[in-house]
Amino acid sequence: MTPSETSSYTYLGPEGTFTEAALLQVPGAGAARRVPASTVGAALDAVRSGAVDAAMVPIENSVEGGVSATLDAIAVGEPLRILREELVPITFVLAARQGTALDAVRRIATHGHAWAQCRNWVDAHVLAAEYFPASSTAAAAYGLADGDGSYDAAICSPLVAERLQLSVLAMDIGDVTDAVTRFVLVGRPDVLPPRTGADKTTLVIPLPEDHPGALMQILDQFAARGVNLSRIESRPTGQFLGDYFFSVDADGHVGDARVADALKGLHRISPGLRFLGSYARADRRSPEVERHTSDDAFGAADAWLGGILGNR
Amino acid sequence: MTPSETSSYTYLGPEGTFTEAALLQVPGAGAARRVPASTVGAALDAVRSGAVDAAMVPIENSVEGGVSATLDAIAVGEPLRILREELVPITFVLAARQGTALDAVRRIATHGHAWAQCRNWVDAHVLAAEYFPASSTAAAAYGLADGDGSYDAAICSPLVAERLQLSVLAMDIGDVTDAVTRFVLVGRPDVLPPRTGADKTTLVIPLPEDHPGALMQILDQFAARGVNLSRIESRPTGQFLGDYFFSVDADGHVGDARVADALKGLHRISPGLRFLGSYARADRRSPEVERHTSDDAFGAADAWLGGILGNR
Amino acid sequence: MTPSETSSYTYLGPEGTFTEAALLQVPGAGAARRVPASTVGAALDAVRSGAVDAAMVPIENSVEGGVSATLDAIAVGEPLRILREELVPITFVLAARQGTALDAVRRIATHGHAWAQCRNWVDAHVLAAEYFPASSTAAAAYGLADGDGSYDAAICSPLVAERLQLSVLAMDIGDVTDAVTRFVLVGRPDVLPPRTGADKTTLVIPLPEDHPGALMQILDQFAARGVNLSRIESRPTGQFLGDYFFSVDADGHVGDARVADALKGLHRISPGLRFLGSYARADRRSPEVERHTSDDAFGAADAWLGGILGNR
Amino acid sequence: MTPSETSSYTYLGPEGTFTEAALLQVPGAGAARRVPASTVGAALDAVRSGAVDAAMVPIENSVEGGVSATLDAIAVGEPLRILREELVPITFVLAARQGTALDAVRRIATHGHAWAQCRNWVDAHVLAAEYFPASSTAAAAYGLADGDGSYDAAICSPLVAERLQLSVLAMDIGDVTDAVTRFVLVGRPDVLPPRTGADKTTLVIPLPEDHPGALMQILDQFAARGVNLSRIESRPTGQFLGDYFFSVDADGHVGDARVADALKGLHRISPGLRFLGSYARADRRSPEVERHTSDDAFGAADAWLGGILGNR
Repeated sequence: MTPSETSSYTYLGPEGTFTEAALLQVPGAGAARRVPASTVGAALDAVRSGAVDAAMVPIENSVEGGVSATLDAIAVGEPLRILREELVPITFVLAARQGTALDAVRRIATHGHAWAQCRNWVDAHVLAAEYFPASSTAAAAYGLADGDGSYDAAICSPLVAERLQLSVLAMDIGDVTDAVTRFVLVGRPDVLPPRTGADKTTLVIPLPEDHPGALMQILDQFAARGVNLSRIESRPTGQFLGDYFFSVDADGHVGDARVADALKGLHRISPGLRFLGSYARADRRSPEVERHTSDDAFGAADAWLGGILGNR
Repeated sequence: MTPSETSSYTYLGPEGTFTEAALLQVPGAGAARRVPASTVGAALDAVRSGAVDAAMVPIENSVEGGVSATLDAIAVGEPLRILREELVPITFVLAARQGTALDAVRRIATHGHAWAQCRNWVDAHVLAAEYFPASSTAAAAYGLADGDGSYDAAICSPLVAERLQLSVLAMDIGDVTDAVTRFVLVGRPDVLPPRTGADKTTLVIPLPEDHPGALMQILDQFAARGVNLSRIESRPTGQFLGDYFFSVDADGHVGDARVADALKGLHRISPGLRFLGSYARADRRSPEVERHTSDDAFGAADAWLGGILGNR
Repeated sequence: MTPSETSSYTYLGPEGTFTEAALLQVPGAGAARRVPASTVGAALDAVRSGAVDAAMVPIENSVEGGVSATLDAIAVGEPLRILREELVPITFVLAARQGTALDAVRRIATHGHAWAQCRNWVDAHVLAAEYFPASSTAAAAYGLADGDGSYDAAICSPLVAERLQLSVLAMDIGDVTDAVTRFVLVGRPDVLPPRTGADKTTLVIPLPEDHPGALMQILDQFAARGVNLSRIESRPTGQFLGDYFFSVDADGHVGDARVADALKGLHRISPGLRFLGSYARADRRSPEVERHTSDDAFGAADAWLGGILGNR
Repeated sequence: MTPSETSSYTYLGPEGTFTEAALLQVPGAGAARRVPASTVGAALDAVRSGAVDAAMVPIENSVEGGVSATLDAIAVGEPLRILREELVPITFVLAARQGTALDAVRRIATHGHAWAQCRNWVDAHVLAAEYFPASSTAAAAYGLADGDGSYDAAICSPLVAERLQLSVLAMDIGDVTDAVTRFVLVGRPDVLPPRTGADKTTLVIPLPEDHPGALMQILDQFAARGVNLSRIESRPTGQFLGDYFFSVDADGHVGDARVADALKGLHRISPGLRFLGSYARADRRSPEVERHTSDDAFGAADAWLGGILGNR
């Protein structure tokens, strides 16, 4: 499946989330059917069941780190495949119903992460502000639009404020400028995007044993082939404290010989390894490949060994 | 400071949280002054300012993984020191005001993590249950006690349900039995708990550079000295995607020669390294130490080299 | 070519050397044509030119170490292939012409290595003995038989003393009991002996660069696949001080997946690598292979990766 | 002891060897007492007994490799210390008694190594030349001077030909131009030459165990501290085939923190390690030291750890 205008999508909703903004960056998605899902798990299940072709979900945030819900949901259950990634700058607005003045704001609804990221601005600009937890930034905005009187304002994305025609009391209120969230488009495992030369491969690797060298042995599979890791997250398996799996993004495509060789090495030491996809990098940055880890070097070594073994 | 009856403590509140339960496991804490804090950051700041002697905060959950708020708050700012760890089994109850029947429950308030961990039970036992987000499980329980009519029941700890004299409609409703959370008692950096032989050392290690071997080089400092890691968490620095620091727990005490040597090696490659403390393991399990990484081997090597250098 | 009665052989002569003793251990060699060669290089050239089918040459001595002449001659020039190895216990006798008494011996001829290895016995048993250098132990014995009056006795192998009907004045005069020399039978590169499960693979590996990790990178190709090295020799290339190649024996056969994979890894980092053969170990000892380096683990990894790549 | 005019020396004789040429490069040695020794072992024993202050012996040849006799003799017995190294270009001459013409030469005496290194020249210029083994190149020359009629010419050093007033029939007859031999001046272990910034450290390291990683573990002690090895030789212990020790030269002085730290690491895994000395490099080339392996980095790490441990 190449995402196209005929595809149908789901995403972590409700409408107007940063996740929908990420989905709208996918060519053709603006004109396609887009169904919000209430949780990451529900979004991925809709892909598994065939209800939609692909799901956009957040995977990594430059401020908060890996998105645990996605990392965990994608690591178990029926296999899925990451088809592409999208980067979305995260900017927060303080939104209210039309007519609300900034100095009238007391209770502010938003998701806990957004609250944490706007805390400095709020402390400086809203006297005695009180936090009202919401399940998402978009949900906080919807509450305002629906007339929920529990709070006066919401911290949310510009997209949802615009959609709901809320009044934007302040823009760009996040403490970290340049905050960005990375989203992945997840489809079924019968697709492997073509190699572009600037790709990323995502893997789930159970830690085989709890000994001083187990993680090093895993990392060595990459390092020995000159494969850089752009993300590494440890996640508990949920079995017991200290039982981990690792979620990693490696530079390169499984179609690159050095990546394929690293994957085979990983499979030998951790056969429960899960391949989540090779796909184009959003930043189109190609890795530098040393001669001895190039496809040519792998090809020459294969040919050389073939010559030896062919003599039998 | 050895925690004693004369100490004063803060903890991630409100009263009745699992964190307070962890604090009550500290000898003498039951009789000491205990002040709840609204956030992990506030709790740690109260220690830094001298308002209290130590703070109990959650650091790792067998289901959810590392507690980001704690990992991040302890990694920056004025130095702090972990003095001990406590393990608390996590069991959830469904609590309501006296007189509420289970089949009358529709909206359930709790923290997002607790909601996620009780989802299976709720789906099976509460028809058409609706989630009402709260800033903590205890806050959800307090809302009930305070007469907040927005929801009918709360998922919370047994401790807070008992304190607030709520009616427990169901016990042990978590999907994962044996869930456990690890808490750390954090004090000022003028204390180093004595070596017990079954210790743990916590470190914050900035990743020096983004190249294939940077993380391996760090891990090798432990592996080369036979020091096992019981926890490794990557956390974004918040600067840009892919800029990480690592939070690790290593087996052993900085007073063990192999740990001290590993720390020196780490300091050389990542001088921004932060030592967060060496303290007794809650499970009292001693590591197996190979001959060549024993204190004796380190002592013999020092003596041998001293003999050579003494000749100058 | 399987060595057979119809084969013709050369060996490092003259007749009666330990090398001929090694050749006589090869099934059928006793009845085959056996031509002594004056140097290792001449013996190998006779194989290259087709004058003989195979050459027996010494490669490693438990007392003296690697045999430089062989290591160097086999490392360059037209490719050759080691077909089998033979171990021969090294025992020296002091031989003289019939009628010579031990207390009449003054000048003793032998090869420098043999002289070094019998020095203690000579010092203890032959008053004021003088060393007379010979180009081989056998040459020293031949000199006696030919009536060369420059010396009175020779240190040589029991085989040559018997052949030449010399008088054996003392047996087993080597300082090291249990000394053993390893010989290899070298043929043309169109033969690959079958895998027996207890094999050895010999390689010549140029050191790619003079940096702290170059040799480690080479050794890691073996260690990462659980392949033990039973011999490692550094040899100068002769170009400049510090420019080396390595001659190694690895446990296993190129037909073992872990060995084949190590060879491919070596070829990538040192493409000038030379494969000198896989052949049965003289001691028939099989290596212990861990699950993750077994042929099964390699096969499973290949199949798994094939499943991923087949989807394109 | 700093070698001075009042010192007495021995060297691998007889007079006129390349080894004496190396000794004459030592400041003051030309005027000092110089006693030739018949073997490397005898030369080193003269140092051990106090008969002389230091011995010059060959250790490494750019064509032949490590000098086994020296590597083995220095590795056992009473400890010794390398004080300096000298490089001597190796050039061979064909020398004969006055009046001998080149076309009259049939039998040529020399040491086996020299014969091997001049083979091409001899084959091209001396019709039907025959090899007559001698215990050293100098001994071959002395034979001529002494009137030994067994041979017509000697391959030897220019120094000895000049000393003995032999006729030089041809100069520079070695097959490898630029051949060089490295010699070391060996004294008693109560001396440690000062650090110059361009030093070398020589070690003897028994291989602790025969497993895939043992040698890597040793090499990692250097690589992990950025210490380059300029020479590595495996030598059999003489106990059984495959039982090795390693003789290595590492860049740097034991007074450099990174070298001292590597030595301590080596001592822990191979306590039988022998330190043979730190001394100025003959080529005066300083190594490049990365920041994290500099003395500053080691000092900063020590101070940092001291701060932590001082709090107890």
